[in-house]
Formats: sequence, C-alpha cells, structure tokens
Amino acid sequence: MVCGLWSIVKRGYEMTITLTDIQQAAQRIKPYIHRTPVLTNKSLNEKVGAQVYMKCENLQKVGAFKFRGASNAVWSLTDEEAARGVVTHSSGNHAQALALAAKMRGIPAYIVMPSNAPQVKKNAVAGYGGQITFCEPTLEARESTMEGIRLRTGASVVHPYDNERVMAGQGTAALELLEEVPDLDVILAPVGGGGLLSGTSIAATETKKGIRVIAAEPEMADDAFRSMQAGKIIPSQNPKTIADGLLTSLGVLTYPVIKERVEQVVTVSEAGIVDSMKFIWERAKIVIEPSAATVIAVLWERKIDLSGLKVGVILSGGNVDLEKLPWQK
Amino acid sequence: MVCGLWSIVKRGYEMTITLTDIQQAAQRIKPYIHRTPVLTNKSLNEKVGAQVYMKCENLQKVGAFKFRGASNAVWSLTDEEAARGVVTHSSGNHAQALALAAKMRGIPAYIVMPSNAPQVKKNAVAGYGGQITFCEPTLEARESTMEGIRLRTGASVVHPYDNERVMAGQGTAALELLEEVPDLDVILAPVGGGGLLSGTSIAATETKKGIRVIAAEPEMADDAFRSMQAGKIIPSQNPKTIADGLLTSLGVLTYPVIKERVEQVVTVSEAGIVDSMKFIWERAKIVIEPSAATVIAVLWERKIDLSGLKVGVILSGGNVDLEKLPWQK
Repeated sequence: MVCGLWSIVKRGYEMTITLTDIQQAAQRIKPYIHRTPVLTNKSLNEKVGAQVYMKCENLQKVGAFKFRGASNAVWSLTDEEAARGVVTHSSGNHAQALALAAKMRGIPAYIVMPSNAPQVKKNAVAGYGGQITFCEPTLEARESTMEGIRLRTGASVVHPYDNERVMAGQGTAALELLEEVPDLDVILAPVGGGGLLSGTSIAATETKKGIRVIAAEPEMADDAFRSMQAGKIIPSQNPKTIADGLLTSLGVLTYPVIKERVEQVVTVSEAGIVDSMKFIWERAKIVIEPSAATVIAVLWERKIDLSGLKVGVILSGGNVDLEKLPWQK
Repeated sequence: MVCGLWSIVKRGYEMTITLTDIQQAAQRIKPYIHRTPVLTNKSLNEKVGAQVYMKCENLQKVGAFKFRGASNAVWSLTDEEAARGVVTHSSGNHAQALALAAKMRGIPAYIVMPSNAPQVKKNAVAGYGGQITFCEPTLEARESTMEGIRLRTGASVVHPYDNERVMAGQGTAALELLEEVPDLDVILAPVGGGGLLSGTSIAATETKKGIRVIAAEPEMADDAFRSMQAGKIIPSQNPKTIADGLLTSLGVLTYPVIKERVEQVVTVSEAGIVDSMKFIWERAKIVIEPSAATVIAVLWERKIDLSGLKVGVILSGGNVDLEKLPWQK
C-alpha cells in the first residue's frame, strides 16, 4: 500500500513530496472540499499592471486553504489509525480545519489551544466538534500537553505545516489553478510556516516547467526572507503583523522545498497589506484576511516587476473579525 | 433581422419577452460579462434548514447583475443606433453598469444623476467613462433632463428595469444557475423595479416546469407585495430601507410578468437583512449589499416553509461603503 510505505519512503535524506503525492491528495480530498473559483478583476489588473487570477481559498471550507491539508492528513489514515483520532496544537485556521476534517470522517480531533486564545476561535473549533484542551500560552506547554494526549489516546499528530500530508494537501490549490489557467507566468503564495508555499511550489514547477513561484511575506515577520538570504532557517523572534496567519517560522520539511523551488520571498508593508485587503473587498467583493492580502500587496507595492504577466495568486483565507476592521477609525 | 423586428413584435398586447430572448441575450453578452460562480455554504444550510445555491452576481462586473441587462441593451443596438450612444437616469448600480457596457462597445453613455447623489457614486460612474449631467433631485427634473439629452444626441434610452432588453439580460443569471443546478425546487430573487425578478421568473419557469419563483422585498419598501395583493401596481411612497437598491416600484413591463409567474412576494425586516448580510460576509466570505441579503433573510426569518428544499438565490450585488457598515457601533 502506498499509504503504508509513505512515512518510511519519504523520511530519507532530501526526499520530499512529489507531484504524484499532490495529485493523489487531490483525488483523496475531492469529495470533501470546495473546488474554489478562480476570479479575475479588471480594476485590479489596471491597478497593478498585470493579469491576475485569484484562486479563492478564502471561499474554501472553514474559510482557508488549511482545510485541504487537514483533509488529506485525516483521509490518509488507515481505519485503525483514524479510529484513535488526530491531535494538534493551534489557535488558528488549522485547528478549525482539522476539527472539521475529523468530524467529516467521524473521528475525534483533540485540539490544544493556549488559554488566552480569542473566544471567537475557541467557539469556532468547538463548533466544528473539536475537543479542546487548554494550556499555558507557551510553546513548551503546548507541545507537552499535545504529547500527553497522544500518549493517552494514540491519536495521530497533524502538524499545521511541517507534515508531508499537509504539504501535499495544500499543493492541490495550485494544481486546480493551473488546470484552469495553464499559461500562468508566475504564482504568488503567502509564507508563514511554509506548508502552502512548499506544496504550491512543487505543484507549480512540476506541472509547468519554467513557471516562477514567488512568496509574499510581511516585513514585520520576515523570517522566510531572512532564511533564504542566509541559506538556513532563521526563526522569527516575536513577530508582530496584522497578517496573523503568517507569524510562524519555516519548518524543517518546508524549508528545503522552498529553498529549491521558490525564486524569491518579497516582503510587504503593513500599510500595503491593509490597502490591498480593502481594495479586494471593495472591488472584487470578497472577504480576505490580511495574510491573504500579502500576495496582492506584492503586486500593489511593485517591489518586483511583474508587469504584463499572467500572475496566479493564492488567496489563502477569509477569517476576520467584522467588528474590528483595520480601516475603521 | 431579429433585432430589427424586436421592438415591433414585442409591443403587442400582453406580449413580453420569451425564453428565446433570454437565451439570445446570454449568447450576446457572454464575451463581456463574468460567468459568476455558484457557491454553497454548509453553515448557511444548517442555519436555514435548506440546501442553498448562491448565484454570486455580487461578483459580476460593476458588482451587480445590472451589468447583464445593460450589456444586453448596449449590444442589441445596431451600429447606427450605438454610435449615438445610450442615456439613462440613475444614481445606482444601473448607471455604472450602463457606463461600463457603453465603454466596452466604445460608445457614449449619458448619465443623468441628481445633484445630491453621493460622491462615491459620481466617481464610480465617471470612472467607467460615463458623461454625467446633474439635475435637481426630482423625478421630473431627471426625466426632462434625460429627454433633453435624447433629443440633442439621438441616444437610446435604457431604463433601469422597465425595458425588455434589460429584463432579458437580467434573466441570464437564472439561466446559468439552472445550467449548474438543474434540480432546484425554488429560486429566490429580490424585487425593486422588477427587472431581475421578471427575467428570472421567465428563465426559471420556462426552463423547468413546476419550479417556484419567490420574491424577497423589504417590509419597509413593500410595493411589490402590496401590488400582488391588490392585483395592480401600487407604487411606493417614500420608502426607507437599508436595501437601497430596492427603493423603486414595479414597472408596466415587469409587473405583468411577475403577476403571472411569481408565486409570492415575501417581505423581510431590516434586522433580518442586516443579520443575513453579516452572516454571509462572515461565513461565506463574500461581500453582499443589503439588497442582496433580502433573499437570505427570507430563509433566515422562515416566514415561509422551504425546509429541505434546494433553493437557488440570486445575490444581486456587492456595492457597499466599507466605512459605514450597518453592524458598526
């Protein structure tokens, strides 16, 4: 069985996921996910001087691409593994995504959340049937709490990004985008931990030779930019950005893929993120979160020249608090 | 020529547009419009107890279905007619839609607007290349100013809704929706002047026998509800509703179609409109305007029983002022 061998084969030196893994993920998760639309907008094209194709993962279930990776992880498990459930620590979209994917398979999802997580996020995870365990808001407490649950239940750990099944699942968005718009010159994806970016870069460069994959990252959380410059992982130190989905640092599985396949990481300003976000809401009539707006901000701020090109962008999510919009006075 | 005969044939007693007109409109405008996506949302389905298919005309060009009717009107003109341009009076989405459609054909669009129209709407029309003439904010002034332009330029008048080419264009959204989801039980559309509703009702009932077409209208602007009760057109008297796209009253061309083909008009509260609107932004991650939210409010307020049914809804538009959201304190 491919599934059974998977964890063994892929752990070898410099082995990583392949296009085949992503294609299999696409088949596996197809019945459970939304095939999200690819939208175009003339005002945006005129504003940034390129032809932009927006892959709307904000319209994905749970409002984020995270549901793809979580679904692939959940549905890759054998029945025996699945029965013991899945476990993760996260206060963001991954927690909701894993809870819903587990619910759809009818298995438990154990979610470790810091006690200071916003109530709205606790409610969302609980709403999808996740079994929440609260812990102190430190990485150490999160890890040890999760390990305790794993030992007690036998649940499979699903890391938010440094997990090959998750990376393969995230790559399926780019696969769909290229199916619809095969002649893209460039794909832009945001980078936090690198799950989306690594999956996207493999899907894109293996599907279309010569396509450029470029990452968007907030200046205020520029660990991927600095890691690429340094040639090694340089984690963030208490980053602060409105793009709260991009606070994490690159992982040991995602970094090598990104280093090999991503042309460059472009950093964007906080103002550029907010302006881009508002423009997309106003003109494209879709709700995107700040993390998703980073890819628009790359075009908006024109730090690199993509003029006249066909540019695919992955709009990563749309989870925002409508009571606290960044342009409100 | 079909085009040449069109205005003669259709003016006869009780003649109106046919499914063929709508199908021809669909072909005519196809190169110019967006084929908008049909979205589903599990949270919404659970909330309202039905299977809802959202035809996203908020994602249409200019952010509203109005672009369909305007495009059909513009592209139905002969070259000679077109060269003289089009004229209308409107301060809403129709003005923007007609301006853009005319721009795409390379002909003038004369737009009469009341001098007190919001600056943002003036800018939008001007941005699409519309030639604006301001007048006093009375219907009489609008009509006479428009007539003056028509006499001077020979431009074709394109009424926002009481125009057969406009009605046929608006019906194309329902045609696309039924192509994608042929087994709908019901279609809900908002009603203001009735252009969208009349086109939708013909497209739906002629495409699928037995399908129910139901209108959504604000309680605070319930002229269509009262007209249906009375069996004759009863215009609104200074209606006030947050759904500012639905302030107009039924027209002489739209009313007979609606009377014949629409099962009922369901009125919704202002609170229901705002709650539905916010729910769609939060959960479906799309920006809809209050007028579009009326169809969701019909399901939300459960004034009629549609439980368990497959319900198509036309989300009519997404033009809102992001600085003034109705749920802001």
